[in-house]
Amino acid sequence: MTSDADLEAFGRALRHWRKQQGISQEELAGRADLHRNYVGLVERGERNASIKSMFKLAQALGISVAQLCSNLR
Amino acid sequence: MTSDADLEAFGRALRHWRKQQGISQEELAGRADLHRNYVGLVERGERNASIKSMFKLAQALGISVAQLCSNLR
Repeated sequence: MTSDADLEAFGRALRHWRKQQGISQEELAGRADLHRNYVGLVERGERNASIKSMFKLAQALGISVAQLCSNLR
Repeated sequence: MTSDADLEAFGRALRHWRKQQGISQEELAGRADLHRNYVGLVERGERNASIKSMFKLAQALGISVAQLCSNLR
């Protein structure tokens, strides 16, 4: 079954790529046109983001969705 | 900007992998514990699925999220 472990794994991937870009959660949120608290919630696996938000976040990080998800089981 | 083109691209990827497994939308929905109409809506880019649903769908297809998203920009 799917569990919150999946959301946590997605959040860790997002954080990994954000840190690689050297930008803050607030900066990422601004670039992606998402709420400032939203990125933190997603990174901690506390928010079940949508596919559209996933595309926005990847785009704001300058990577593809394929890259963002490249280590997800 | 993100557009419905992103949801359509995700839907095409989902359909690609479902057809490769040779199963129907209904069969996939059953395996993923999702509503029977849901898979069709997602495949047509008419529904903004969640990250959790993405994990469920990949698992039901016997592939990783990384594979499911491997061609998404």
